[in-house]
Amino acid sequence: MDRVKTGIKGLDEMLLGGFLLETANLVEGAPGTGKTTLGMQFIYNGITQFNEPGLILTFEEFPQQYYHDAKRFGWDFRGLEQAGKLRVIMTSPEVSKADLERVEGRISSMVHEIGARRILVDSLSHFERLTDDPSDLRSILFSFINSLKREGLTSVLTRESNALIGESDSAEEEAAFVVDSYLMLRYVEIESAIRKALLVLKLRGSDHAKDIRQFAITAAGIEVQSKFEGQEGIMSGSPRRTMAEGFREAFVKRK
Amino acid sequence: MDRVKTGIKGLDEMLLGGFLLETANLVEGAPGTGKTTLGMQFIYNGITQFNEPGLILTFEEFPQQYYHDAKRFGWDFRGLEQAGKLRVIMTSPEVSKADLERVEGRISSMVHEIGARRILVDSLSHFERLTDDPSDLRSILFSFINSLKREGLTSVLTRESNALIGESDSAEEEAAFVVDSYLMLRYVEIESAIRKALLVLKLRGSDHAKDIRQFAITAAGIEVQSKFEGQEGIMSGSPRRTMAEGFREAFVKRK
Amino acid sequence: MDRVKTGIKGLDEMLLGGFLLETANLVEGAPGTGKTTLGMQFIYNGITQFNEPGLILTFEEFPQQYYHDAKRFGWDFRGLEQAGKLRVIMTSPEVSKADLERVEGRISSMVHEIGARRILVDSLSHFERLTDDPSDLRSILFSFINSLKREGLTSVLTRESNALIGESDSAEEEAAFVVDSYLMLRYVEIESAIRKALLVLKLRGSDHAKDIRQFAITAAGIEVQSKFEGQEGIMSGSPRRTMAEGFREAFVKRK
Amino acid sequence: MDRVKTGIKGLDEMLLGGFLLETANLVEGAPGTGKTTLGMQFIYNGITQFNEPGLILTFEEFPQQYYHDAKRFGWDFRGLEQAGKLRVIMTSPEVSKADLERVEGRISSMVHEIGARRILVDSLSHFERLTDDPSDLRSILFSFINSLKREGLTSVLTRESNALIGESDSAEEEAAFVVDSYLMLRYVEIESAIRKALLVLKLRGSDHAKDIRQFAITAAGIEVQSKFEGQEGIMSGSPRRTMAEGFREAFVKRK
Amino acid sequence: MDRVKTGIKGLDEMLLGGFLLETANLVEGAPGTGKTTLGMQFIYNGITQFNEPGLILTFEEFPQQYYHDAKRFGWDFRGLEQAGKLRVIMTSPEVSKADLERVEGRISSMVHEIGARRILVDSLSHFERLTDDPSDLRSILFSFINSLKREGLTSVLTRESNALIGESDSAEEEAAFVVDSYLMLRYVEIESAIRKALLVLKLRGSDHAKDIRQFAITAAGIEVQSKFEGQEGIMSGSPRRTMAEGFREAFVKRK
Amino acid sequence: MDRVKTGIKGLDEMLLGGFLLETANLVEGAPGTGKTTLGMQFIYNGITQFNEPGLILTFEEFPQQYYHDAKRFGWDFRGLEQAGKLRVIMTSPEVSKADLERVEGRISSMVHEIGARRILVDSLSHFERLTDDPSDLRSILFSFINSLKREGLTSVLTRESNALIGESDSAEEEAAFVVDSYLMLRYVEIESAIRKALLVLKLRGSDHAKDIRQFAITAAGIEVQSKFEGQEGIMSGSPRRTMAEGFREAFVKRK
Repeated sequence: MDRVKTGIKGLDEMLLGGFLLETANLVEGAPGTGKTTLGMQFIYNGITQFNEPGLILTFEEFPQQYYHDAKRFGWDFRGLEQAGKLRVIMTSPEVSKADLERVEGRISSMVHEIGARRILVDSLSHFERLTDDPSDLRSILFSFINSLKREGLTSVLTRESNALIGESDSAEEEAAFVVDSYLMLRYVEIESAIRKALLVLKLRGSDHAKDIRQFAITAAGIEVQSKFEGQEGIMSGSPRRTMAEGFREAFVKRK
Repeated sequence: MDRVKTGIKGLDEMLLGGFLLETANLVEGAPGTGKTTLGMQFIYNGITQFNEPGLILTFEEFPQQYYHDAKRFGWDFRGLEQAGKLRVIMTSPEVSKADLERVEGRISSMVHEIGARRILVDSLSHFERLTDDPSDLRSILFSFINSLKREGLTSVLTRESNALIGESDSAEEEAAFVVDSYLMLRYVEIESAIRKALLVLKLRGSDHAKDIRQFAITAAGIEVQSKFEGQEGIMSGSPRRTMAEGFREAFVKRK
Repeated sequence: MDRVKTGIKGLDEMLLGGFLLETANLVEGAPGTGKTTLGMQFIYNGITQFNEPGLILTFEEFPQQYYHDAKRFGWDFRGLEQAGKLRVIMTSPEVSKADLERVEGRISSMVHEIGARRILVDSLSHFERLTDDPSDLRSILFSFINSLKREGLTSVLTRESNALIGESDSAEEEAAFVVDSYLMLRYVEIESAIRKALLVLKLRGSDHAKDIRQFAITAAGIEVQSKFEGQEGIMSGSPRRTMAEGFREAFVKRK
Repeated sequence: MDRVKTGIKGLDEMLLGGFLLETANLVEGAPGTGKTTLGMQFIYNGITQFNEPGLILTFEEFPQQYYHDAKRFGWDFRGLEQAGKLRVIMTSPEVSKADLERVEGRISSMVHEIGARRILVDSLSHFERLTDDPSDLRSILFSFINSLKREGLTSVLTRESNALIGESDSAEEEAAFVVDSYLMLRYVEIESAIRKALLVLKLRGSDHAKDIRQFAITAAGIEVQSKFEGQEGIMSGSPRRTMAEGFREAFVKRK
Repeated sequence: MDRVKTGIKGLDEMLLGGFLLETANLVEGAPGTGKTTLGMQFIYNGITQFNEPGLILTFEEFPQQYYHDAKRFGWDFRGLEQAGKLRVIMTSPEVSKADLERVEGRISSMVHEIGARRILVDSLSHFERLTDDPSDLRSILFSFINSLKREGLTSVLTRESNALIGESDSAEEEAAFVVDSYLMLRYVEIESAIRKALLVLKLRGSDHAKDIRQFAITAAGIEVQSKFEGQEGIMSGSPRRTMAEGFREAFVKRK
Repeated sequence: MDRVKTGIKGLDEMLLGGFLLETANLVEGAPGTGKTTLGMQFIYNGITQFNEPGLILTFEEFPQQYYHDAKRFGWDFRGLEQAGKLRVIMTSPEVSKADLERVEGRISSMVHEIGARRILVDSLSHFERLTDDPSDLRSILFSFINSLKREGLTSVLTRESNALIGESDSAEEEAAFVVDSYLMLRYVEIESAIRKALLVLKLRGSDHAKDIRQFAITAAGIEVQSKFEGQEGIMSGSPRRTMAEGFREAFVKRK
């Protein structure tokens, strides 16, 4: 099966090679967990490692913010734009939706202009203000996502989590049903510190790693690390050490 | 009693042979748990193993998506359609409901045309947008399900769970009361990884396995595996190892 | 005190002989826990063991469904109807309420016609759609229940639980206050399997067993079994083994 | 201080002698916990042991129900009515409220007629349907309770708990602030059985027992028993054995 | 810094000397925890120990109730009123708010008349019925509290807690932000009994004791006692003994 | 990268040097946790240690309150105002928002007048009353924050937490997504006392300390202390000692 590599070590491995071609991939998490960084890295690696130009669709931040944030990781987004490999478009959910429904809209033009194969949509949460009705929202998201697929794009769609630490109790998960894969980024409190956890919950049409991995945002971007060990209830955000781990720590490590 | 075998190893065993003839069987779960795969496998096995043609009623995805997803498991849905053994119909809850109430509607025609004995309805959740009133919803579901039974069909009806991991706190369970069996698919966090659990909660008119089984989506479809062991609170999504298991792990396994 | 035996072994024992004469007895539980089966068994045993004819009032299922479900347990409901010992009436809450308020209504006629002493009302939940106001609902239920008592009937009233597994967080318990006894049927997860628990929460005017019993639906109907042992928090649906039990299992059983 | 003895062994002891004279005493609990029984016992003992005639104000049940229920405990309410020591009045919150505000209302007349010193109001929950506004409700309850005090009555006011087992999460506790004492009756699951717990949460103007006592409804009425031991979280309804108790049970009792 | 001593042993110590001069001090708790007693004691000690006359502003109870309740602790409020050291004013939030905004209102007059330095407002919760809007409420409370400060008063403001035992899940905490100190009174279940806990959560402009203290209402009023020991989760109302405490109790105490 | 030091020992270290230049930094916590103190310290240290004049924008408290509170820590705010290094402006969210949108508004003038580089906005919560719509709120906050950045200011924005102790269940976290860093101040119950915890949840464009630190408000202001140790679930407000810690305490410390 054709894989679209994120170029993020550890993540491609969890995805058994990468996202699937022309699919919509949701990256959901609380503020600061690194959703946008993951998305930018997906775009940057696409251009520089796999020669796949990319678009960034933003509904809140100005393009300058992306240039600035990317720079921190040594990613020269301005240079890539000038080289015709990247476009950062600030727009609104309404406009981008309408635009994609037209035969030759602005987004479509840009896709053709730079030969884009990847897109980052930051963030899907802004679509939620278009309607209060879950069915309508789902229908809007579904048609938006299909538009992206029709353009031949593989997308990373960020979504903001309702809960800061751990899972929300009553999530509106309309988006979860219309995407092809679902990545969760979570804050987790372990040993009196906050770590970050990444989980691939689903990957339509493929197997994937099931374990909950620790990750960090380093100077080079997202870095997926080893699996959490000896903890129960990680996705709750407030896990407990397992009994076996507790004994080991009390009687083996401490001695 | 007449059994309609799913042909899914392990599942038929849990159902003591299969679903009951001309019953409505709910398969409920979060996105990515494999509801649709289970339903497609039920249809595919029906046609290829038991010579029972089948219908797929879809309210969101295009037929192509089913062909594509089925292909991954080596199921040639296009071929089966051409052989007159399968029909994938994209419609809406409103239309399909009205259609089934007519004497010779489109669905009824197709049932007769291919001699369908099985149907996958994907998903029942879309009926929820027809009304805000739980009583109305229940009445709609009840009459829809009875229409399927009148056509002589044994159905798998998928339904989307409100919670991602574990049980929802405040589920609207109108559907649960009008179906004949209720299968739950759940994400469960065990040993720092997400596994999938399957439970047969009810099977009207028959005994069934009561244990919570692990299952996986393999290259050949759903594969029901062994029972979970040494865990408490599995259906919460965030189980704990039992004390006995903790001791065993700490003093026996680790040594 | 006059007791109306259910004829269900174990249950009559928990009730110290049976329900009290001309009382309303609520049986509440999630789908598939066996509420209707318990009610049918109450009616069937009434007719065949105690020579007390019975009525079944249904607001959703057709009489055929009861004949069919009863047959599984070897209960010949059609035969009993023909013998003038049983009537299965499909109606609505509105109609049955109005009917019972009339001097010589249909239900009353049937009571007299077959000399009915017992009634199964399946289910009380359907009354909830008559009003959104808890006070009104309570008043409606109260007058309905009194009508049944005036007819000299001892009733089993089923009610659907809001939660699938364990207790609901915010139950509307208007019904609980107007009935004479309250039986809870619950799904409980123990040792990685789902069992069924039965609890007599109240029995107006009599003592009763206070322990939480396991029960099963066998080929002969409901069978109340032994008390749960070594578990804490059973009614939560997700109990934990007690520490003593954990030690015993770890060091005694396992060795 | 003047004490109004309930005559219920164990309870008077918890109250350091009884309720205080001319106070309003709330007894709150789930259905079947014994609120009304406690109230009837308060009235019955008042008449027979302390020569204090009493009234029962009921908003739902007919007087006959009280005669009937009382009889079970050997309390001859009919006889007491005939002897002019007891009045059971069925009315509504609206009427009783208006009545008590008039100079010489029906309730007031009855108080004088039989020289009543005690009253059972069953239940205060019915006042909640008079208004949706918590401030209004509180004001209504406050004035109703003061009317009772002006008549020189010591009252037991029952109130229905929102939760069946354990505490409700979001209680409307307007009543709690306007009464002089607050007794909680709760179902508690201990050792796989449901027991009943009684707690005196407050007793305005006096000290009181602070421990959580077990109680039962025996053939002679409410019987307050010993304190619960070795449990944590009793008022949650789902307590856990303490660790010390767990060890004792595992290594001492079992051996 | 100028301290306004409560004269309550243990509490002044927790406050490192007392409240701060001309500040607003919130005392929040469930019914029966002793909020009003603490406030009356603050007023009584002010008059008798520190020669600071005081006012009591009540929105629900009649002055007689305060005289009566105070008497229990041996505090002669009537005498103090006659001596011109105390005024108990029954009013409404609306009136007292308007009154304090006038140049020479009734409350202001009384402050001057008796030279009041302290005030008990019982309770702040009644202001909540003036508006449904949290911002409005906050603005009302803020201006009311400032009026008290302008009069040179140090105030104790009682507030009713939403939860009976432990913390409320969703508190409206507008009051918490506009006051200078926040004292919490809580019911806590420990060793199968209900104890009372006191916590100084904040004290603007000063350090304070951070530990959770047990307290009792004795014949002499509030008495702050020692810190709770060996418990986790006290403020939840349902604490657990710590593991160390459990071991100690199991193997040291019991032997 | 340019860092704006807070001058708060421990905090700058957690931030790997300080906030980033011209960023918006959210400090969120319950009443009394020290949000405003942290903000005042940021302003005071800016002026006195780094020669960066500062503004304080207040929506509720009068400037006098800040002078007064600052004095407690030995910070002479009045003196700094007279020296033209500080401005404390009392305004409303509406006015300050409109003001910042004008070319030469009052805030802008003051920034230029004193050469302000830092601003404390106390508190952002007041913006929430401008709209009920989360999208609108977010848009308002976003444009307000951008106005501050355009003025070249590095800001500390306080925000009030919904929960007193631990995390709120259903936070409206619009603010969290539009700021550059997020500091949480929390009350935590440990060893029967309430301590304060500080966590840097995110710091856009930089790494930061991930551990949960204890802090205190001393006579010199906020003092960040050591990491919490041996506790699980700190951010819940009600942590548990880890098993290893429990054993250590039981068998090592106690002996």
